[in-house]
Amino acid sequence: MPFSRRQTRKDQLALARLRNLRRQDRLTKRAEATPAVSPLAPPNGFPALPEIAGVELSAIAAGVRYKSRADVMLARLAPGSVMAGVTTRSSTRAAPVLDCEAKLADTPAPEAGAAIIVNAGNANAFTGGRGLDSVKTVTSAVAETLGLPVSRVFSSSTGVIGEPLAHERITNALSALAATLGPGNWLAASSAIMTTDTFPKGSSASAALSGGAVQIAGIAKGSGMIAPDMGTMLVYIFTDAVIDQPQLQSMVTRQCDRSFNSITVDSDTSTSDTLLVGATQQTGAAILAGSADADEFELALGTVMTDLAQQVVRDGEGATKLLEVRVTGAVNDSDAHKAALAIANSPLVKTAAAGEDPNWGRVVMAVGKSGAMADRDKLSIWFGDILVAEKGWVADSYTEQDGATYMLGDELVLTVDLGLGASQSTVWTCDLTHGYITINADYRS
Amino acid sequence: MPFSRRQTRKDQLALARLRNLRRQDRLTKRAEATPAVSPLAPPNGFPALPEIAGVELSAIAAGVRYKSRADVMLARLAPGSVMAGVTTRSSTRAAPVLDCEAKLADTPAPEAGAAIIVNAGNANAFTGGRGLDSVKTVTSAVAETLGLPVSRVFSSSTGVIGEPLAHERITNALSALAATLGPGNWLAASSAIMTTDTFPKGSSASAALSGGAVQIAGIAKGSGMIAPDMGTMLVYIFTDAVIDQPQLQSMVTRQCDRSFNSITVDSDTSTSDTLLVGATQQTGAAILAGSADADEFELALGTVMTDLAQQVVRDGEGATKLLEVRVTGAVNDSDAHKAALAIANSPLVKTAAAGEDPNWGRVVMAVGKSGAMADRDKLSIWFGDILVAEKGWVADSYTEQDGATYMLGDELVLTVDLGLGASQSTVWTCDLTHGYITINADYRS
Repeated sequence: MPFSRRQTRKDQLALARLRNLRRQDRLTKRAEATPAVSPLAPPNGFPALPEIAGVELSAIAAGVRYKSRADVMLARLAPGSVMAGVTTRSSTRAAPVLDCEAKLADTPAPEAGAAIIVNAGNANAFTGGRGLDSVKTVTSAVAETLGLPVSRVFSSSTGVIGEPLAHERITNALSALAATLGPGNWLAASSAIMTTDTFPKGSSASAALSGGAVQIAGIAKGSGMIAPDMGTMLVYIFTDAVIDQPQLQSMVTRQCDRSFNSITVDSDTSTSDTLLVGATQQTGAAILAGSADADEFELALGTVMTDLAQQVVRDGEGATKLLEVRVTGAVNDSDAHKAALAIANSPLVKTAAAGEDPNWGRVVMAVGKSGAMADRDKLSIWFGDILVAEKGWVADSYTEQDGATYMLGDELVLTVDLGLGASQSTVWTCDLTHGYITINADYRS
Repeated sequence: MPFSRRQTRKDQLALARLRNLRRQDRLTKRAEATPAVSPLAPPNGFPALPEIAGVELSAIAAGVRYKSRADVMLARLAPGSVMAGVTTRSSTRAAPVLDCEAKLADTPAPEAGAAIIVNAGNANAFTGGRGLDSVKTVTSAVAETLGLPVSRVFSSSTGVIGEPLAHERITNALSALAATLGPGNWLAASSAIMTTDTFPKGSSASAALSGGAVQIAGIAKGSGMIAPDMGTMLVYIFTDAVIDQPQLQSMVTRQCDRSFNSITVDSDTSTSDTLLVGATQQTGAAILAGSADADEFELALGTVMTDLAQQVVRDGEGATKLLEVRVTGAVNDSDAHKAALAIANSPLVKTAAAGEDPNWGRVVMAVGKSGAMADRDKLSIWFGDILVAEKGWVADSYTEQDGATYMLGDELVLTVDLGLGASQSTVWTCDLTHGYITINADYRS
């Protein structure tokens, strides 16, 4: 039974005028309220990233949607490079994601190089048959420009869903993009893929292997529609290491669970989430599966992935506080992750953080609804190092003043011990503020 | 690895002073921003509810937490009454919920009457062993006052989690409560159980059965921590019908799925959700299982439950719009419900509604993340009667202006046809606004 419609058409038009005025007002307020850069951005700005042998990048203002800013980036990887990746599990995933999946599943062709082309401003998602046509047009043009088989050209699109992609704006820019490829263009590439991001995101690490040091560097974008079902955003990571595709893929999948699948901003999952990792095979000796070198390399790769994932949360829409939620003592890993995510996704927990309110009752509520096995009388909770509750009751040593003072920090750690087993999980999120509402109630307009 | 703590204790105290000033400012703004009554409240106020033979109610200002308002209600049901109910599935559910569950599971004792005692302001949740002691103290005192076995006294508590319940304030008020019991006190009882509610909620229906008309009337509270895992809030429904307990219980369980389990405000599930339904056996002939009378009665019961459930959404914290989300064409009921809930819980869909933005891309995203089987190229979407998208692409007849005009309404119907099967589900929710943030970032202070 639909609701009765109380308004006549005439009423609606009068309202429309009034509300258009109010919308203008909101847009003005939004511009005032949204900080130019997230208060949680890394204080030293974009990091200095090393050049990766065999990787070149470029960016250009192609006018896909934005005016007067770069919005397309191109990456070229040297012949012999292998590609691994993880994509969103959304059942409505975008055309470029489907295309990437097909190409990742293909037998790698290390004799060829590879390329990645990314545009911001339009996600080419829910665009029917035309969406796939756009992907084919763009990737074929890149393949022709760079002399690669089209099966080695990966693409991503990010931005508005449901509008056709003006792909000719991308193909028209390809010769200029190819002409400006260079090894050090990290900041330009990272900036070109931003949408509602307030700062470009980059990270690097090196691993000292028996055959010499190898480098890993990557960039990411994302600040809304962030939830751990894969994915969460666009991430491109490159390394000069000598590593075969199956080994690289299994490391990427494993580390993805501990990084990008362990962050959430708003529990919403993008239709475009894509993580691609390319290894150019240029430096050092082959990393053998199961070796100490493999462990060392995976550790460094995980560091870069976790750092980028945390940067995405630091740029969460409207975020003013970073929350690390740790759940320990669960009966298994799945329960630990479920409970941590339920806390991190709870609007009541996130608004309590925004209000600097040490409201541990809301943490209890979130554990209760998570579906994880929990026993009220075995729960313990810490805010930072402060024991707040133990065995189902507020701790004797706890004072509201201590809790309130702790909540003033910009970076909060909430720990819940379920007291039932040995499994644990850590998830990162941000608070839920007026800024989030301001950004998302007018994003498309 | 915890985050580095950049602030010294001295910094924190300086910050604390500054932020206390800001908090005062926010509290003032909150008082200004929070409407006295939800704009979605029923326009004619609290409905006229019929007296139910065998049911008496009273309410009193017992000072549990609030000052100068009634915060405890008592209901007495005549000898012979049967009780059915559904409670939250939260694994951290409150002491009174556990007590209700045990009593509902007991063999009914129709020779005795029954009573329900409810306080607002303190949920008696996560209060350890003391919580259960409070429940025993309160229910025993009610049993003694009214001359009932304690096994027939049900209790609920709603409000702040994790603080001990000052139960003596309730027991001290019992004789006054008992002295003022009367059949028409619906508004007083409904008002006494409110917490962040902005209006009291009541509903009634009658069913014309072969043995004569029977009446159903009920009250509810709830406006935050509303999500469909049972429950969602406190609901007490009474009828004078002659119906046995097992039959009543199965009707209540079935109708609960279509009403209280089909609403969501913020995806958070309370630790206290309780629905109790009492049938006093006073009027008409026995309702036989499987009879036309049983169908007629269940229909009327479902009407009251759905009406109360929708009133809870209409009082959603900060709500300015009511959303009815209908999913059709799913392969099974579970998928239909999953997809409808994913849309209704999506912060991006809810903020789009708040911003009057016809952003159907966010609806596609929510379907994609829901876990329900979906095929992007078979999806169709309507805003009200307006076909927005079909078969994975924007409809030829759709204009942004039509969508934008539709979104101006206070009551919106979003329909998604998955195009895969014959199952459907309807869920009700509200938009996500600055009001929600304002209310929840300072609730406990």
